[in-house]
Parts: sequence; structure tokens; C-alpha cells
Amino acid sequence: MEIIRVPRIVRETAYAHRIKGRSVGLVPTMGALHEGHLSLVRRAKQDNDVVVASIFVNPTQFGPNEDFSAYPRDQEGDLHKLESAGTDIVFLPDVQALYPKDFLTSVSVAGLSDKLCGAFRHGHFTGVATIVNKLFNIVRPIRSYFGQKDYQQTVIIRSMVRDLNVDVDVIVCPTVRETDGLAMSSRNAYMNPEQRRASVVLFRTLTAASSVIRNNGGTTAAVNEALHVQLNSEPLLSEVQYAGVYDPETLDALTELQKDNLLAIAVKIGTTRLIDNMLVQR
Amino acid sequence: MEIIRVPRIVRETAYAHRIKGRSVGLVPTMGALHEGHLSLVRRAKQDNDVVVASIFVNPTQFGPNEDFSAYPRDQEGDLHKLESAGTDIVFLPDVQALYPKDFLTSVSVAGLSDKLCGAFRHGHFTGVATIVNKLFNIVRPIRSYFGQKDYQQTVIIRSMVRDLNVDVDVIVCPTVRETDGLAMSSRNAYMNPEQRRASVVLFRTLTAASSVIRNNGGTTAAVNEALHVQLNSEPLLSEVQYAGVYDPETLDALTELQKDNLLAIAVKIGTTRLIDNMLVQR
Repeated sequence: MEIIRVPRIVRETAYAHRIKGRSVGLVPTMGALHEGHLSLVRRAKQDNDVVVASIFVNPTQFGPNEDFSAYPRDQEGDLHKLESAGTDIVFLPDVQALYPKDFLTSVSVAGLSDKLCGAFRHGHFTGVATIVNKLFNIVRPIRSYFGQKDYQQTVIIRSMVRDLNVDVDVIVCPTVRETDGLAMSSRNAYMNPEQRRASVVLFRTLTAASSVIRNNGGTTAAVNEALHVQLNSEPLLSEVQYAGVYDPETLDALTELQKDNLLAIAVKIGTTRLIDNMLVQR
Repeated sequence: MEIIRVPRIVRETAYAHRIKGRSVGLVPTMGALHEGHLSLVRRAKQDNDVVVASIFVNPTQFGPNEDFSAYPRDQEGDLHKLESAGTDIVFLPDVQALYPKDFLTSVSVAGLSDKLCGAFRHGHFTGVATIVNKLFNIVRPIRSYFGQKDYQQTVIIRSMVRDLNVDVDVIVCPTVRETDGLAMSSRNAYMNPEQRRASVVLFRTLTAASSVIRNNGGTTAAVNEALHVQLNSEPLLSEVQYAGVYDPETLDALTELQKDNLLAIAVKIGTTRLIDNMLVQR
């Protein structure tokens, strides 16, 4: 496994593979890797000749009061996991390499970026769209892999790719869960054992709401009631940022259930912000 | 000369050249072509194996009260000129092909986009950066060509390319002028003969101010005085939007002359907006 820190070198290395006719897949990450990330690497390895994984805690997607400096970092562990999962090239830039002094440009996806998580994390999705656009330009993969857990992110990246004619196939892979159902997330490490036990409420809530949708008589009112009954049953839950049933493409709240429905939740347990979602067909 | 209207086809056509090892140069235009545009095509032909020219009057770079619908269009004449200048492929998309319904994404270059012309044309440079980013992603040229007449545009495109790690060499070619010095522009056609005679005031003003800079005793006050004396001498000039001496990289007004200085002017003659600039070494 090659470890490359310089954007120009990873660009040239990926290019050298491409001109030999090898397909290059990219898995962008912020490190602190878990099975969710590794499932993306394994899928990328199945689909492509060469897998590039990037590790970069992107400062522009964190708000001023968010956890940029506290975000978990484990470079040695990450490299070991990436190698075991079959990564060929790790791109490990430092902040200066990607955001030099006088950096001025941003990529924004209007509308979609202000809904759901965007309403609570101003500028977050502009930071995401910008860094992903940069990584795509540096590596020029044929495919790139993202987890469904960050559902809104996947919708925004797909829009950016379509709108800017970026020639990358965006592949969204299923959320990987702990045995009790908690969606894997680097931020799960912030919780103490009591909070960790409480956090299963997200999965339990989504599962209960899914049953309401799959029941043909279900209405959005019944779905929302199920969501809130479940969430209210957990005393350690300190804040519900949103919980509802949404259109999977526009992310607008639904007034009537449709063929495809997105259940999505963002809450805080203590100071740890957790999100989860399920796509449910009626 | 191939004429291609579909983004996917021009992408595939350019790709087919690239994998055969041929270099592809891009000349983005809004049509209504003059010798300035054709000088870009000729330069692109010298530098590259294959020249793609695009003709697209980009709606997102026009403000609501600007001249999008009146902007001169001459497809037949343009195609004839492009063929004579050695263009290999003309990309001629319609608006729907580049801005489908639900288009949401924009590329912005902060700071630089609000200065000079940007202060009078809100959103203009975001429209420019977005369409140029799209054209780069569709054609994937190794080099792209722009005229110095739109100096601020070239600074913004260079910033976008650097910040987003776009792998395109941005080449800026000298302003082409009429015999009396007027910078060629598709908008020159808006003027009546009397206004056209008056419009030489821009070149005369820049030339006078250049002399002040080249005179070692010159100060920015003396340069600005020369600019305004000249501009005030033309009664048909209906508005001076800006006229001054600026840093060529930051576009900030200079308080002291430096090694490299940008003289730049934007005025209206009747309702026709005209810009011009000169880079002057002290």
C-alpha cells in the first residue's frame, strides 16, 4: 500500500494507472475508520483495479462551535485497517496542501444544503461539496463510494456531480450497524457506556416508523407519531434536531407517504450528535 | 470541423482524442466572434493537437437587468470563422443541456468576485466560474484560452482552477484591438457610429495612464488624475463605473505603484457597457 501526502503525486500515480487502462475507485474518509468505511473499501476493491482511500479531516465542513479539533484521529490504526481491506493507495494530505493561503473557491448545492442537517450545520455541505470536488479533481476516479448513513451528503454529492458534469459514478453503500443496531460512526466514540446503551433509540425509532410505512394504512401523521413516541421514551436524549419522513430526492418533509420514503433523524445524546436514516418503500 | 450539441458526445469525442495521446485545447466563447476570439483559437491550434471551441451564451452570468436576450448571436457566421481559424470541434449546447431542471450547484470565488466589475454585476463571476468549471469537466482540455480584455475573469478562473485542483493550464492571450485602439468586444456592435468614435476614449485613457506609470516619478494620485482627466474629456461617456490602478492579483486599488500594475476601466457609452485594461510594469 502506497501512502502519498502530496496532491500532485497522487494525481500522477492515479493517472499512471488510468493510462494503463486500470479503473480507479476512490473512498474519501475523515479517518477514525470503522467497519462502515471498510465496507466501502471492500466494495471499491470489487469494482475497480485500484482503490484510493483518502484520510482528511476537512476543516471547512466543521462549524466554529463544532468538533474539528476533538474529532477522533488514529492514523496508525487507520492505515492498518485500510491495508487489510485491500487499499492500494492512501492519500493523506495535510491542511495546507488542500487549503493553501488565499484559498477562495467554494462549491455549493443550493436548497438541499439548507435542509435537515444543513439547518443545524451552516456551511457544512458547502465544505463537503468543495472537498469532494477537489478530491475528484485530484484523483479522477471512475467511481467513488459513500455510506448511506450520511444520506443528505450523498444526495448533495450526486447533485454536484450531475450539475457540474463531473465524470464520476457516485456509489452509495448500505449503513453498517453495530449488533444492537446503532449505525457505525466515528463520533460514537464520544459516548460513555450509558449513553452508548441509550443510543440504540435511533435504530429502534427508525424500525418502528418503518413498520408504520410498510403497513398500507400508514399516514405521515402516524409515522411522525411513532418517531416521537420512540424518541421521547429515551431520557438520555438531550435534543431532537429533526425526525420525520422526507422525499428521498428533494429532502422535503412529506405530507403523504409515497412509493419511496426517507426516514431521517438527528439527535443529541449528551453533547454527541448522532444521525441515522432508512429508505423505506411503501 | 465537427459540430456537437450533446455534452456526453463532446466528452466522448475529446476522450477518444486524449487516449490516442492527442492534446486537447479549449476556447470557451459566447459566440458573436471577433478577431479576439479567433486569436485564441489560432493560439490553441499552435499549442494543441485538437481545438475545441464552445459557443454558449451562458444565462447564469447575466443579471436580471442585463443583455442576455439582446446579446448578439450569429451562429452561421461564427461557425464559418471557427472553421477558418482551424477549430476541430465546436461544442454548441442548448441551455437545457447545461442547466437541466433542478440545477442547484454553483462555484464561487469569494472576494475577487465582488471587486471591480463584480460590484456592478452581482453574481456574474459565480455564473462564469460555474460554466467554465462545467466546460472543463465536459471537455477535459489540457489547456484553455481566455482573452486579457476580461482580466478579472482570468484572475477568477485561475483561482478556481488552483483552489479546486482542476488539471487545466489557463492561458491568457493579449487583447486584440481595432485600428483606433478600441478593444474588440461582441458588445461593440451595440454602439452607433458616433458612440463608436467616442469609445476610443478607453484606449486613450489607458495609454495616458500607462505613460504616467512608466515615468519613474509617477504616483497613484497622478495615475488616477490622468485617468479621470481623459475620461472627463469625452462628453458621450454616460457613466464611469470604475477607473483606477489595481494589484493584478488581488484586484485591490493601489495606494503606491508597484512593479506590476493593472490599469482597469469600466464605463458606459449610452447604454453600452465597455471595459478595458492594461498591465503596466513600472
